[in-house]
Amino acid sequence: MDRLKQQIEFIVELDKLKTVFRQSLLTNKSRYENDAEHSWHLAVMAFLLAEHTKEKVDLLKVMKMVLIHDVVEIDAGDTYCYDEKAKLDKQEREEKCADRIFNLLPEEQAKEMFALWEEFEAMETPEAKYAAALDRIQPVLLNHASEGRSWKEHGIYVDQVLERNQSIKHSSDKLWSYVKGLLEDAVDKGYLKKRI
Amino acid sequence: MDRLKQQIEFIVELDKLKTVFRQSLLTNKSRYENDAEHSWHLAVMAFLLAEHTKEKVDLLKVMKMVLIHDVVEIDAGDTYCYDEKAKLDKQEREEKCADRIFNLLPEEQAKEMFALWEEFEAMETPEAKYAAALDRIQPVLLNHASEGRSWKEHGIYVDQVLERNQSIKHSSDKLWSYVKGLLEDAVDKGYLKKRI
Repeated sequence: MDRLKQQIEFIVELDKLKTVFRQSLLTNKSRYENDAEHSWHLAVMAFLLAEHTKEKVDLLKVMKMVLIHDVVEIDAGDTYCYDEKAKLDKQEREEKCADRIFNLLPEEQAKEMFALWEEFEAMETPEAKYAAALDRIQPVLLNHASEGRSWKEHGIYVDQVLERNQSIKHSSDKLWSYVKGLLEDAVDKGYLKKRI
Repeated sequence: MDRLKQQIEFIVELDKLKTVFRQSLLTNKSRYENDAEHSWHLAVMAFLLAEHTKEKVDLLKVMKMVLIHDVVEIDAGDTYCYDEKAKLDKQEREEKCADRIFNLLPEEQAKEMFALWEEFEAMETPEAKYAAALDRIQPVLLNHASEGRSWKEHGIYVDQVLERNQSIKHSSDKLWSYVKGLLEDAVDKGYLKKRI
């Protein structure tokens, strides 16, 4: 029972991810999205869009990866991807949280969590590249559907979004092409600023 | 691109699940949980607790199942498991929503969604029994961690929770035994009413 108790303690601790808010609005613009909802959305996308990746992926691994990739934000908080200052100590804050939270689990499961998270962060394997692509596409979908309100509030330029999102092409030309189309549309509609 | 467009339309539509609220409070009691967060929590539990099932399960299938099992509540709304009146037309409301939403997808993916949802609802396969067990355990964890506030507000008796949750044992004696222990503790602490 001790093993199960450790697992349950981790599962209950994870509940806090529902209170970590991101910078994307829901499509109905009622409020910002939280990390747990975001991770759910990515996991559903993972199995629906897997046919579009360049390299074959281990889908179960991708799904585990996207489900836990933001757990380290429980203590570290969400770092807005266009906040260059906050990004400076992001890694340190997140590693500290990973140490605390993953180690609630039985040892070999803690190791699996660390390995999944580190693989995700390194963006080198087909699974990590695909997970990273999903993590970039999903906010674009939400920002576009919510008429760019969050982009506008932060004064974001299309070049910034293109730069951050171009890694999508390492996983899928088709998804990258789709996202580029959406960003062009976002500029046309005034959701994103066009640098002159 | 038509196929990808259909998939994206479905993915954007799914965002609405983040606005369907359940009757469980978050562990910090700040608000009720929504269906998207709940589904995320189940998917993480699925891979952490799989070792405890009586029958070997196809984990990828379980994870897909729990991720989409509540999608039909986008139109149908959440039906509180102890609301006997609302349960009468639950199936009809949910089937209508499944028809509308799953059919946004390309045909064979729509079929997969229907199949996963129907398998989940029938609770017959090892995967569906495990998914159903997780779907019952998770609210007990939240209700216990939030000092039974939702149970108290609805005046729930331990017998009702035991009856609803006993299907956990079809998937796992160990998880069922853990939940029973938690419910006994909930009675001792006054979170649940004990029928005399």
